[in-house]
Amino acid sequence: MNSRSSDIADLFADASGGDRAALARLLSLIERGGDDARTVGQLVFPKTGNGYVVGITGAPGAGKSTLTSALIAHIRSLKQEVSVLAIDPSSPFTGGAILGDRIRMQNHATDKGVFIRSMATRGHLGGLSLAASEAVRLLDAVGSMWTLVETVGVGQIEVEIARNADTVVVVVNPGWGDSVQANKAGLLEIADVFVINKADRPGVDQTRRDLEQMLELSDFTESAWRPTIVSTVGTTGEGADALWNAIEEHRTHTQNDGSLAKRRDQRLRNELRVIIERRLEHRAREICKGDRWEAIQNELLDRTRDPWSAADEMLRGISA
Amino acid sequence: MNSRSSDIADLFADASGGDRAALARLLSLIERGGDDARTVGQLVFPKTGNGYVVGITGAPGAGKSTLTSALIAHIRSLKQEVSVLAIDPSSPFTGGAILGDRIRMQNHATDKGVFIRSMATRGHLGGLSLAASEAVRLLDAVGSMWTLVETVGVGQIEVEIARNADTVVVVVNPGWGDSVQANKAGLLEIADVFVINKADRPGVDQTRRDLEQMLELSDFTESAWRPTIVSTVGTTGEGADALWNAIEEHRTHTQNDGSLAKRRDQRLRNELRVIIERRLEHRAREICKGDRWEAIQNELLDRTRDPWSAADEMLRGISA
Repeated sequence: MNSRSSDIADLFADASGGDRAALARLLSLIERGGDDARTVGQLVFPKTGNGYVVGITGAPGAGKSTLTSALIAHIRSLKQEVSVLAIDPSSPFTGGAILGDRIRMQNHATDKGVFIRSMATRGHLGGLSLAASEAVRLLDAVGSMWTLVETVGVGQIEVEIARNADTVVVVVNPGWGDSVQANKAGLLEIADVFVINKADRPGVDQTRRDLEQMLELSDFTESAWRPTIVSTVGTTGEGADALWNAIEEHRTHTQNDGSLAKRRDQRLRNELRVIIERRLEHRAREICKGDRWEAIQNELLDRTRDPWSAADEMLRGISA
Repeated sequence: MNSRSSDIADLFADASGGDRAALARLLSLIERGGDDARTVGQLVFPKTGNGYVVGITGAPGAGKSTLTSALIAHIRSLKQEVSVLAIDPSSPFTGGAILGDRIRMQNHATDKGVFIRSMATRGHLGGLSLAASEAVRLLDAVGSMWTLVETVGVGQIEVEIARNADTVVVVVNPGWGDSVQANKAGLLEIADVFVINKADRPGVDQTRRDLEQMLELSDFTESAWRPTIVSTVGTTGEGADALWNAIEEHRTHTQNDGSLAKRRDQRLRNELRVIIERRLEHRAREICKGDRWEAIQNELLDRTRDPWSAADEMLRGISA
């Protein structure tokens, strides 16, 4: 272990002992990627598997942050601790404050039983999904029993991140059926619990009927979990208890029928595949630059070399 | 040269002499991919660069096939020959008929000066773009002076294929501004010529103003080509001559200012990059299967191995 690795091991020991500054530094290393992120990931990996992860996703404006804040309050009223990872691929801010960096969660900023962190990235969206998985594992490894992962948008990356949870909560609003078409199918497919948030507005019953109708069209086996539908008002906290109960029911169900373990295994397998793909992509980017790349491109443009033999030549001797 | 390669060389010689059955067989080899496609590509590559390629894209229902048919009639009235490649990634049919396989183009089915071919694929969408480039080059190499590439949808793949043309024609309809939002930005970005087709319907002037307004927001340099806007009625052929003139103007402009050569070079460079990426992806798929893959996954699930060292292990000794 070199000195850098032993610094990281110290940070991890401190974070495991409850040092939030150390935890924040480790999360920043994960966010930045590279060798340090790998060192963190390797330290953390064997200690994981105890925490439970709830993904919260839905269209922008559905009130996810407010609902998450209400959920935090409910979890705290049960005397349990909770971590929140807010993922925003479109935000230009990376790294960032540990606590209170999201205005709607300010109420919890001074609560030692709540840890809130934003993750974002300017580019490399594929990388954010891996970074989010590593961040969730770090929180798990330092003893977070409940981690809420809130994604801001409903794009492919956000859905991919949200579905990497043990329970996936999809937040909709009354009238949702008519308005938001964006990636609706993707959201329906991943939901374990539907929340009709802003349920103080008209149209809740219709939205519930719409969701139930869509669920009836799905082909659930007898023993499989059938997504539940809960109504909430995030701003008042109404329904946060019912939402938490629905999450607990889903957890119990999937623990008992073995589907939680299967889902977690599948998640790890997928992650390995993604890591391998990313490495090969990185290798492709490394290959496609420099003098040799320029020379071969020129041969291609002169038509003294065809594209396939040019690719052969560039790939010759690569070991990834 | 093995016997298979010499068969392909014979087919290419026949196709170059005007044998359409030979040409069709070569196109099928390209569509199928693999070693034979590569052999065709390598034979063809040095003979290319004489033909001119027009991409025609736009939302489904915009009347692209009818317009293409009208354009064929106009080109034939000028006593020139033309090839048409109709690309439909969503079609379950691959391979396919040489002539008259598209109902709206039946009029040209018996015209020896017109060659029409559909290309489709069930999966591997990334591969269709490469296959389309190779098909276009084959047509070029056997002497097609004009190749029209019509894409059916406006998804990312279709836009990618259409933009691989020397002149890109984007087909819209009156009222387009309000209705079709799908990938509008992508279409605006690639258009060299806009066609307002179905111009016998109301709203042509408004659509033209909308397009002009959008073009004004774009930042064209003084000498750069500024996309032209043409109105047509595909069903009657009205405006096909104006469209052809606009294409010819674009061709002359880009030949004179050197941007055609630059665009073609850039296209080849991109293609090489895509070939390298595809090879590495293929390699990743090859890696992620088999007994070794299962064994390493099991170590991962047992947490006796972390994802990064699992990836290292799978990638060890790969040469791509």
